[in-house]
Amino acid sequence: MDILQLGKKAKEASRILGGLSAEIKDKALFEMADSLLQAKYEILSANEKDLGAAREKGMSDALMDRLRLNESRILSMARGLKDLCDLPDPVGQGEIIKRPNGLTIMRQHVPFGVIGIIYEARPNVTSDAAGLCIKSGNSVILRGGSEAINSNKAIVSALISGAVKAGIPEDSIQLLEDTSHESARALMKMRQYVDLLIPRGGSALIKAVVENSTVPVIETGVGNCHVYVDESADLEMAKNIIINAKTSRPSVCNAAETLLVHKKVAESFIPEALRALEKRGVEIRGCQETCRIFPGAKPASEEDWATEYLDLILAVKVVDNIDEAIEHINKYGTSHSETIVTKNYDSASKFLSRVDAACVYVNASTRFTDGGEFGFGAEIGISTQKLHARGPMGLKELTTVKYLILGNGQVRL
Amino acid sequence: MDILQLGKKAKEASRILGGLSAEIKDKALFEMADSLLQAKYEILSANEKDLGAAREKGMSDALMDRLRLNESRILSMARGLKDLCDLPDPVGQGEIIKRPNGLTIMRQHVPFGVIGIIYEARPNVTSDAAGLCIKSGNSVILRGGSEAINSNKAIVSALISGAVKAGIPEDSIQLLEDTSHESARALMKMRQYVDLLIPRGGSALIKAVVENSTVPVIETGVGNCHVYVDESADLEMAKNIIINAKTSRPSVCNAAETLLVHKKVAESFIPEALRALEKRGVEIRGCQETCRIFPGAKPASEEDWATEYLDLILAVKVVDNIDEAIEHINKYGTSHSETIVTKNYDSASKFLSRVDAACVYVNASTRFTDGGEFGFGAEIGISTQKLHARGPMGLKELTTVKYLILGNGQVRL
Repeated sequence: MDILQLGKKAKEASRILGGLSAEIKDKALFEMADSLLQAKYEILSANEKDLGAAREKGMSDALMDRLRLNESRILSMARGLKDLCDLPDPVGQGEIIKRPNGLTIMRQHVPFGVIGIIYEARPNVTSDAAGLCIKSGNSVILRGGSEAINSNKAIVSALISGAVKAGIPEDSIQLLEDTSHESARALMKMRQYVDLLIPRGGSALIKAVVENSTVPVIETGVGNCHVYVDESADLEMAKNIIINAKTSRPSVCNAAETLLVHKKVAESFIPEALRALEKRGVEIRGCQETCRIFPGAKPASEEDWATEYLDLILAVKVVDNIDEAIEHINKYGTSHSETIVTKNYDSASKFLSRVDAACVYVNASTRFTDGGEFGFGAEIGISTQKLHARGPMGLKELTTVKYLILGNGQVRL
Repeated sequence: MDILQLGKKAKEASRILGGLSAEIKDKALFEMADSLLQAKYEILSANEKDLGAAREKGMSDALMDRLRLNESRILSMARGLKDLCDLPDPVGQGEIIKRPNGLTIMRQHVPFGVIGIIYEARPNVTSDAAGLCIKSGNSVILRGGSEAINSNKAIVSALISGAVKAGIPEDSIQLLEDTSHESARALMKMRQYVDLLIPRGGSALIKAVVENSTVPVIETGVGNCHVYVDESADLEMAKNIIINAKTSRPSVCNAAETLLVHKKVAESFIPEALRALEKRGVEIRGCQETCRIFPGAKPASEEDWATEYLDLILAVKVVDNIDEAIEHINKYGTSHSETIVTKNYDSASKFLSRVDAACVYVNASTRFTDGGEFGFGAEIGISTQKLHARGPMGLKELTTVKYLILGNGQVRL
C-alpha cells in the first residue's frame, strides 16, 4: 500500500475510533493481548528470521538482545496491554467554563487523531505503542527498524486481529512495511494525515526526525543525566544514589552518565564511591582532579561530558561549587533527569530552580523518571522538550483538547 | 548584533527573568506602559517614516491601516500592558503527587525560556507579545515585518527602558533589526537558544515557519470558519449569527468565510439572509443552487471554499445533509472555529463530535473564539494545531512544566 493511502486510511479510522467508548477500547486491548499470546509461535518464528539476518550482518550483542523475543517477553507485552485496561480513559474528560453571556464552554480532552511512532529494532515497542494509542483513541502508524520487520509484521497482524474482534476499525493500526529512509521521510511530511510524531530511540534517530519533520514532534528519551554531590551531602546516601543511578539498569535513559562532586568532599567521597562502582563493573573516566584522587580512572575527554553511554561507564568531574555544577549540567545535559545530594536548603532550592530539565531531584536517584514510578501508569516515553509534554508521558499526553461551546443564539457585540 | 549572540543573551536573561516574582514582573509591565506613553512622539514619528516608505511602495489601504499608529492606538497598547497586571501569574502553580515510597513530586508550571515571535507589519503585536512573554517569565525575540521596522525599534526601545526600571534584565526583550529572510530562517533553526516559535500572520507566513523551523512551533490564526444552518435551525437566529460572524469584524481570524445551508431550508433562508448580508456590503459567491435561489450571487469556484477572505466576501453552499456539511468543513476548514445552528439534539451532538476544530459551536457566532471572550484574559493567538495548545492561548500556554522531586535517599529497586 502506498504511504499516502495508508495515512488516509489511518485518518479515516481515527474518526471512528475517537468516538468509541472506554468499554470497547478496553475490550480491544484484552483481545489484542490474547491474540498476541495465541500467535506466539508465529511471532517467535518471525523473530528468529530477524535474528538470523541480524547475526549475519554482525549486529552487536546489546542490539541483538533488544531485538530478541521469547515466551516471557511476549507474555509481558500481553500483560502490558491488559494493564492499560485498568487505567482511566483520558478521552472526554475536561473542565467547564460558564460565561456571563450564557455560553457554556467545555474544554474536553480528545484524541490527536493519528500518531506516528518511529523507532528502532525493539519489537516490544510495537505492542506498547499500539496499546497506548488505541487506549487514547488514536490511530497509530508504526515505523519500526528494518531489522525487526518480520517480528513487527507478525505482532501487528496479531494485534489487528484482536482489535477488530472488539469493533475497532482495522485501519487504526498500521505498520509501515517499507522501512527505507524515504518511507520515514514521507511519514515526517504527511501533515494532512498525521497529527503527531514520536521518535523513540537514540539521539541520531531523534535528531533526524526533529530536523526533517513538518509534522509536530515530541522528542523523547535521550538522557545524559547527572548526579551532583554537594559539599554538605550525606556521603553514604550519595554513594547509594550514584550506585543505583548508574548500575541498576545502565541501558535506559534515566541512568546517570556523569557524577559531579564538590571539591570539598572530593577526597572523602571519591575513593570509596568509585571503588564501589568499579566493583560493579563500571569504567571510570575522570577529570584531572578525579584521576589524581582515584588513579584507577581513565582521563575523560571533552566528548565524555556530552555522551549518553547507556553502558557501565561513568564520567566524573570535581567542581568548585554548585554554580559550576549547574552550569555544567545546563551545558552538557539533555534536560532529562538531574539530581543533587545535599543537606543544605539553599543548595537544594538553587539546584531545583536553576537546572533546566524535565525532572530535577533532591536526594533521590534519577532512575525514578518513569510513568509507572510517577503513578501515571504506562508511558509512551520521556519527553525532553518543553512543548506539550515534559517528563514521563502518560495517556493524557496522547490527547489534545477541543472547545465545545453551547449557546442559544449568542452573537458578539 | 549577530543573531546567535542575540539568542544567547536572551537565553541568559531568561534564567534570571524566570525566577522573578509576580510583583516585579507586574511592576515592569506598568513601567513599560508608562514608558510607551512617554515615548509616544518618538514612536509616532518613527511610524510616519514607515508609513511614508510603505506609501511609496504602494502598500494597500488595508495593510497601511494595520501599520498605522496614532495616540489612541498607543494608549491602547499601554492599557493592554497594564491589564496584564491583573491576571494571575501562571509561573509556579502546579500539582503535588505524593508517592508510596515517600517521594514528593511537584509538577510546576515554569516559563519556556525564550519565545520567538515572527509577525507582519502590525506594530501593536510588538508590545502585546512582549507583555505576554514578560508576564509569563519568558525572554522574547521579536521579528516583525520590515515595513514596521522603525516603529518597532521605537516601541522596543521604550519597552526595554521601562522594563529595566523594575529590574528586568535588558536582554529579555530583543528585536531582530535585520528583517531579511535569512534572519528569520536563522531564528527558526536556533534550537539551542529558542524554546518556542509563534508565527502570527497570514497563511503564507505560517506555512513558511512550519516548513522551515526546527524550533518547536505553535501555529496560530488562520481561520477559514463556517456557519452551517441545519434543517431544523431557528432561521431568525441563523440570520443573526451569520451576519455577526461575517460582518462584525471581517478582517479577523474568527470571522466566518463560508455559509453552508441544508437544502430543505435553502429556499426559505437564503434570500432573506443573503439580502441582509448584501445590505451590509457583503459580496456573495455561491454554489450553483445558491445562484439559482439568489441570482445576485456570483458563482463560486473550488478555490473559494478554501479561501480565508478576511474581507466582506462570503462563500455560500447548499448541502444535502449534515454529513455533507461536516465533510466539507473537515476538508476545507483550517480547524479554527465552526458553528451549527440547529434545534435538533442529534445534529448538535454529531457536529460537536465529528467536526475537527479547536472550537466547535452550537447556536452561537464563531466570533467568540478569543482569549478575552473565553475568560482567559489576554491571548497571544489562537492555536489551530493540536500540540500543546489549541484554541485561544492565554498566559498558561506560554509555560511548560517541570517536575521537582523531593526525596530523602530513595533509590529504585
